[in-house]
This record gives sequence, C-alpha cells and structure tokens, in this order.
Amino acid sequence: MTAWENAAENPALGFIDEVLRGCGQVMFQNSPITGLLFFIGLFAGGWEFGAYAVLATAVATATAHWIGVPKGLIKAGLYGFNATLVGVGLAFYLDNDWLLAVYVVVGAIAVVFVTAAMANFLGAWNVPTLTAPFVVTTGLMTAASFGFSELNPSSFSPAASLPVYGTVAGRESLSASDLYHGLFNGVGQVFFQDKIVVAVIFLIAILASSHLDCMMAIIGSAVGIGTAYALGVPADSISLGLQGYSAVLTMMALAGLFYVLQINSFIVGIIAAALTVVVASALTAIVAPFGGHIFTAPFVIVTWAFIAASPFLENIQAVKPADATTVEGNINVYRKSPHWWDKRRPSDA
Amino acid sequence: MTAWENAAENPALGFIDEVLRGCGQVMFQNSPITGLLFFIGLFAGGWEFGAYAVLATAVATATAHWIGVPKGLIKAGLYGFNATLVGVGLAFYLDNDWLLAVYVVVGAIAVVFVTAAMANFLGAWNVPTLTAPFVVTTGLMTAASFGFSELNPSSFSPAASLPVYGTVAGRESLSASDLYHGLFNGVGQVFFQDKIVVAVIFLIAILASSHLDCMMAIIGSAVGIGTAYALGVPADSISLGLQGYSAVLTMMALAGLFYVLQINSFIVGIIAAALTVVVASALTAIVAPFGGHIFTAPFVIVTWAFIAASPFLENIQAVKPADATTVEGNINVYRKSPHWWDKRRPSDA
Amino acid sequence: MTAWENAAENPALGFIDEVLRGCGQVMFQNSPITGLLFFIGLFAGGWEFGAYAVLATAVATATAHWIGVPKGLIKAGLYGFNATLVGVGLAFYLDNDWLLAVYVVVGAIAVVFVTAAMANFLGAWNVPTLTAPFVVTTGLMTAASFGFSELNPSSFSPAASLPVYGTVAGRESLSASDLYHGLFNGVGQVFFQDKIVVAVIFLIAILASSHLDCMMAIIGSAVGIGTAYALGVPADSISLGLQGYSAVLTMMALAGLFYVLQINSFIVGIIAAALTVVVASALTAIVAPFGGHIFTAPFVIVTWAFIAASPFLENIQAVKPADATTVEGNINVYRKSPHWWDKRRPSDA
Repeated sequence: MTAWENAAENPALGFIDEVLRGCGQVMFQNSPITGLLFFIGLFAGGWEFGAYAVLATAVATATAHWIGVPKGLIKAGLYGFNATLVGVGLAFYLDNDWLLAVYVVVGAIAVVFVTAAMANFLGAWNVPTLTAPFVVTTGLMTAASFGFSELNPSSFSPAASLPVYGTVAGRESLSASDLYHGLFNGVGQVFFQDKIVVAVIFLIAILASSHLDCMMAIIGSAVGIGTAYALGVPADSISLGLQGYSAVLTMMALAGLFYVLQINSFIVGIIAAALTVVVASALTAIVAPFGGHIFTAPFVIVTWAFIAASPFLENIQAVKPADATTVEGNINVYRKSPHWWDKRRPSDA
Repeated sequence: MTAWENAAENPALGFIDEVLRGCGQVMFQNSPITGLLFFIGLFAGGWEFGAYAVLATAVATATAHWIGVPKGLIKAGLYGFNATLVGVGLAFYLDNDWLLAVYVVVGAIAVVFVTAAMANFLGAWNVPTLTAPFVVTTGLMTAASFGFSELNPSSFSPAASLPVYGTVAGRESLSASDLYHGLFNGVGQVFFQDKIVVAVIFLIAILASSHLDCMMAIIGSAVGIGTAYALGVPADSISLGLQGYSAVLTMMALAGLFYVLQINSFIVGIIAAALTVVVASALTAIVAPFGGHIFTAPFVIVTWAFIAASPFLENIQAVKPADATTVEGNINVYRKSPHWWDKRRPSDA
Repeated sequence: MTAWENAAENPALGFIDEVLRGCGQVMFQNSPITGLLFFIGLFAGGWEFGAYAVLATAVATATAHWIGVPKGLIKAGLYGFNATLVGVGLAFYLDNDWLLAVYVVVGAIAVVFVTAAMANFLGAWNVPTLTAPFVVTTGLMTAASFGFSELNPSSFSPAASLPVYGTVAGRESLSASDLYHGLFNGVGQVFFQDKIVVAVIFLIAILASSHLDCMMAIIGSAVGIGTAYALGVPADSISLGLQGYSAVLTMMALAGLFYVLQINSFIVGIIAAALTVVVASALTAIVAPFGGHIFTAPFVIVTWAFIAASPFLENIQAVKPADATTVEGNINVYRKSPHWWDKRRPSDA
C-alpha cells in the first residue's frame, strides 16, 4: 500500500482520491496520478476545461455517495469518468456563462443515474458501459440548446445541415506535420483537446499507470490516421486528431484490456480501430441534420460489438470487465491462471 | 369487493372493466372509475379523441384476449393504456377520414404485440414498458404518412425542417394566466389536450384513485414549468402545457410509484422531472428533420434511466413494477414489510 | 445422408458447403442447393452482385473459423447470410471500383463480430438476429461515404433531403403488369434485384428446400402489394417490389418458421407483413435527411416485435430459433411432440 493509499483512508482525501481515479478512468486507468495529470492537461488546454472537469467529477462522485452506489465502484472511479467528459463536453460545445455551471452540475448528477442504468442493462452480458453515459447525456444536453434562450452553442457547434456527397474532393497528401499532429491529437481529442503539449501530458499520465496501455493508445491513433488517409478523409481532420480519438480508445479497450493481449486480440484491435473511422464518418452524416455531435460514439459502438461478441469467439481470451486492470495486469493474471474467466459460451448448435 | 367488481364477473361487464382500467393506466391507475373519467375528459376535449380512444382500447383488449396474453395483465389494464394513447395520438396528428378508423384499429392491434415484446425484453430487469409501445407505434405510424396518399397530416403536424439555433430570443416573463394554464395543461397534454376543463376532469379522475398520485402530478407539472422558464423556453409552449406532461408522468412514476415515497425519491423525482424538459427540447431538435413528434418519449427515457439504475442505488427503495399500486398503497406495504422487494443488487466490486 | 453431405466432410468442399448454406440462410434455408441457386440468381442480376456476394460470404465464413465461432453455427450458414447481403448491398449503393472490393472484405469481417454480438444480446430472449447485422453494418458503411473521397455513392443513392408531405398525389391504379412485377420483384428485392427472371430463380431456390416456405414468400409479397395499394403508395414502387420484400421475409418468419403454422400464426403473419409497409414508409422518412437506406429494417423491427412477444402469447406456438427448420419441418416436430418448446412464460400477474 502506497503512502497515498494510506492517506486516502481519510474521508476528505479519500474523496479526492475517488475524483482523481474517476478522471483517470476516462482512459481506463484506476490511478489517482493518471487522473491528476489528466486534470493538469485539461487546465493546460484551457481553464474552463479543467474547472468544469473537476466540478463535474466531484459532483458525480458526491451524488453517487448520496444515492448509495456501491462504494467499491465509486472507489475505482467508475462513477466519475463519464462526468469528467460531460463537464468538458458541455464546456466545449456551449457558450460559457453562469448558467453553464448549473447545467454542468445537472449533467453530472444525471450521468450517475444514466451510468447505473446502463451498467444494470449491460451487466447482464458483462459488457461495460464505456463512455456511453457521457455520449447520451451530453448529446441530449447539447441538442437541447436549440430550444432554450439561456444556453447557446459555442463556435464549435455547427448549424444543422443536410450532409452532401462529394464535398471531399480527393485524397489529400499528409505532411510530416499532419502526421505527428494527428498522432498526438488523436490522444488529446479523447478530451476535446488539440494541442500537442496537452496530448503529451495525457500520454505521460497513461504511462505513469501502464506502459503497454500507452503503447496501444499510440498504435490506435496511428491506425485511425492510416485508415482515414486510405479512405480519403481531408488532411485537416486527420491533423486535428478527429480521426484518431475513437481508434485510441478502441485499441486500448480490445488489445489488452477487455481481451488479453495476444496476436488475435491485437489483430482484432486494429480491425476495430479502423472501423471506428467508418462509423465516425457515418454518424457524422446521421447527426448533421440536427446539428449533433458524435463524441466517442464510434468507440462505444464498435467496442461494444467486439466485446459482446466474445462468448461466441473461442480463439480470443475475454476479460470480465470487473476484473480488467491494465494490459500488463491482465497478462499477469492470465499467465498464472489461463482460464480464470470461464466464458459463458453458447452450446455448439 | 365493491358492487362493480362483483358485476365485472359478468364477461361483457368484465370486458368493459378491462377497457376502463386500460384507460386509467395511462396515468398509472388500475381503476375503472379513473378510466371512465379519463374517457369523459377526452370526449370533452373533442368527440374524435374520445371515440378513437375507446375504439383503440377496446380493440387492443380484445386482441390481447384472442392471442392469449395472461388474463391478470389484461385485467389490470396493462394491455390497454398504450392503445388508448395510440388512438388519441393518431387522431391528433392525422386527418380524420374513414381510413383513419382502420388505421387506429391496426395500430391498436400492433401495439399489443409491441407491448408484449417490450415487456419481455425489459422484464429481465424489472423495468416497465411505460408508454414506450405507444411512442414507437404512433411515431412510426405518423411518420409513415409521408409515403401514403390516403393518410394526411393534421394541422398539428409541422413540415420536416432543420432545427435552427437562436430562434428563442430570450427568457419570456410568465403571466399568472400562463402559470395556471401551464399547470393544468401539463396534466391535459398527457392526452394531447389543452383545455383547463379537460385537465380538471383528469385530475379528479386521478384523485378518485389516489390523493398522493394527484399531488405528484401537480408537482411534476410545476417542476416542468419552473425548469422551462429557467432555461428560456417560450411562454406559449409553457402555457400550452407542452413543458409539463412528461414531467407530470415522471414525477408520478418516481416519487411514489416505482420508488417508495421518501425524501430521497422525492428529490430524485424532481431532478428527473426537470430533466424531461431538457430531453424534450433535445428530442424535438432530433426529430425535426423528419417532421417527427416526441410524444411522451422524454418521460419514457428519463424514467427508464432512473428505474433501471435502482439495483445500484442503496439509498432509495425501489418497488417491483408488478407490485406497484399507488403512492399510498406502496407506502402501506413498505411500512408493514420494509424489505419486501429484495433488490437484485450487484456485488460490491 | 446425401452424396453431397458425404463429400462435404472434405475440408475444402465443407467450406464451400458452408458458404452455400450461408447464402441460403438469407431466406432461412439451411440448404446448399438453395444457396447455389441464390448465387446463380445474383449473377443473373449482374456479375458484381454475384461476385461480391460470393466474396463476402466466403470472407465471413473464413473469419468465423479464424476467430473461433462454434462450428455448428458456421455449418448451418448462420455466419454467412448477413455477409452475403453486405456484399450485395455495398455493391448496390456504392460505385464499383477496386476500393469497393476491399470495403466489402472489411464489411464481411465486421459483420461476423456484429452478428456474434447481437446473437449474444438477443439470445437471452431466444430472439434471432435476423438480418439486423447486415442492416446496421451496411447502413453505417454506406452512410460513411459522405466523408470519404475514395468511396462514392452509386446512382441508387439519393441525395440527403427532407421528406415532404403530399408528394404522393393519390391512389394509383395497378395494371396487371404492375401486379405480377410487384409479386415477383417482392422476392427479388430481398437481394436488391428487380428482374422477373432473377426472382423466379430465387423462388425455385426456396422451392428446392421447402414448398410451404415458398408459398409463404409469395403470400407475403401479395400482402405487401395489397397494403401498399390500400394506403396509396405509388404504383412504381409497388411494381419494383419495394413494398414487398420485407413482407416476404416477415411472412416466412412468422407464418411457419418461428411460429408453428396454424390459423393464428397465419393471421399474425399477415398482420405483421402488412405492418412492414407502414414501418418501411416511416423509416424512409426518418433516414431521408441523411440519405440513408432502410434495407430490410422493416422486416427486422416488425419480426423482432412479434417473436419477442411470444412468451406472453399463449394462443400461438413459438419455435425456438435454434430448433426452427422449415414450415414443414416445424409442423412435423410439433405433431410428434406438441410441447417441445416449453415457453418461458411470465407468471400470471
């Protein structure tokens, strides 16, 4: 037990520990140091991102305590990460005035119930909620601003429009700058950030918890870039990291976290990460007519499909969400006891 | 056993009893007198609303008997209330000609199967269908009219359009007339009605079954008004009751029906009722491009989330849907036996 | 055991057998001869439909083996039919260049995981995936082309647009030619085909496996035409078979396959087949703003509802998906042992 873990026995410090772990779980790390660095990165990206992230994570953690969510789940940060993203997402897509703070608090409370509801539904198949509670809550709360005079869209919220074929003229060549910007920003955009320095802080944050998770994040970002280039996505979008963030999370989730890292799960992770680029493009067209945002929905949809498929996939070793730690952690447990998760496999029909 | 319950042993009267209870369940009341008053209120609102409501409820009840739905469910009106709303909803959004009557009959048959399907899916988590079968069935049947020459939209069906930011100029002050119209119409709009007299009949109908349910309905309507005002919804919409009807149903469902009424469930009910205003505004934007209607979807979505969350919420006492009666009824059972519903709680991870 | 079944013990021939059965399952037939004739019909419709169908089915079958899907499921063709449709669907809605072949391969791999995921979710209620994996996968992959310069829509992909009321002027009379074209093309359009000769090949393919399944397909097509005419769908759409293909699949699924063919299931099949016309019109409006396609979604949605409802329907004999064979096959098993599937019936509340 580390000194911090000892200190966190104190209620006040324990609450801070939970908030930090909540933030760390945005990229699957049950680690207060990762969460702390994520918050620092957010403040480096803009004070409002850091402030609303802290506010939302704290409110959600407190709400979870009030309403009686099992303490072990709160302690692991599982009732914090969606709120962190609600805070940042609302600050990104809505104008910043005093009502926004109230709105973030409401969103942080709501996402606790949405998380519990989804966890209850999906738990029947050992499928984790991932960031779906954030996607749904923030998606509805931003779309709602059409009807409210007191909440206005930020400059990042495009007008509602019909998607048009042929707006992408042809495959654009990528400069070296596009490539490394895209590679780093793919990580940064998990938190709506597009500055290299912020992405570097985020990568250090992950590295502090798991070397292999950090490596998978970078590989995922690269897969996103490669797929987007092959299909002819504009260079701007690639350089901003918009083609990589769902691929980052998907690669981390499948290549080592919810599947033990092996050659098959590595291949599956790459396939899935590539598919997020397709799903992202599709969802962007689908939500355009109501001015919607896709958030991390491509990651959620693709990763759900690949995790939910696991009972039918004999040649790939799934990890029960409640047991998943890090790529290294899962490998260690698996080496000691290769069948620690008895798959609920369907009978051979 | 009352005289009516005795009389309802007769097959024909028993069928009428089921139809009346079916209508009563629109606002959660397993009571023939409530259902009768609801029908009377609908006729007061317009003969076509009353007539199609009776027709649809009767057809659905008969269909449920034909296909073999468990008699206890039919008896409790649980296969009627969605059909009641299908009848009123189709009459509201489509032009009234002879084909509409056929269409209502088809919708009433269809909604029986949709209800059974949803009950099967959601039953795995003890989550009730609420009015989702109505929302889905009527939503599809009204959207379908775009492709049919023989079914035309009524004047209440707006053309498909892209939502536009900034159409709401600023927060509008509410007159006393707006306030009391909004308060009553919030109840009336559960059935698409916007006349005070109709809402009063509906409130008396609920009162005949449960004083506390009636109180929660009024509180819900008030919460809807307050939230809509705070966020800057136009006064017209508030006065028509369009910001209140989902809040009414949500407050009733959570503050006493599917949770035992206690301080926590009361607070949760108010939070949830307020959230319906946000979800309603979001869904309105989302369905605008295909000229869709949101019906009671905000109530369904928000209430599902809060009910489905219950196994993870220790400080709030859920009531199994099959056991739920009225606010008073639940309290009485709970006082006698505080743990009569053993929650399927997840293990503390 | 037939000579072919003997030959299929050989791995290479066994793989071909699986691919053929995979194609046959598009219309519920676990039969290599049906699948072979379906492929022939597709080549008769256009070389690209046949070629991409074979490619996709083969890739999906190989992927299923690689990742370890239970062999019995692959052998029955259950991991092939969605891929067959992915191949044909992408070839139909996207321009045919070399990248399309890669895209079809990716789609065929993806749909294996999507199928397994949906099978896992829906298996909890004994509800089959039907063609939902195809609808979702192809729906996303075609919508994605808005964002990619290297994949372009074919002439069958309309621009995104808002649906408009009143575009259908009035009920159009149907000529004899419209009627028989509509009747046959209703079957052909299951595979996106609109030539009589192709539909005839398809019907022979079904006939080779089951006379009653073939009859239900034709009845379904007729129900689709009748319903569409009654509601006022343009004659062109009816003649092209666009009002019939979901009705064909729904009638086959409910009137004999997932319900034992009896008078009640026959009536239910007709009601459900008629409803697919309504759902198709609704979905067409809903997806218009993002230029979407509805594929066999009307069949999936309506059939899911009617199958999922079964535990609540005492007067109709459901067949567990894993046990379903053909209309005749189910009847034979049922006659020998009327209660071979103990319904998971809800207790009478």
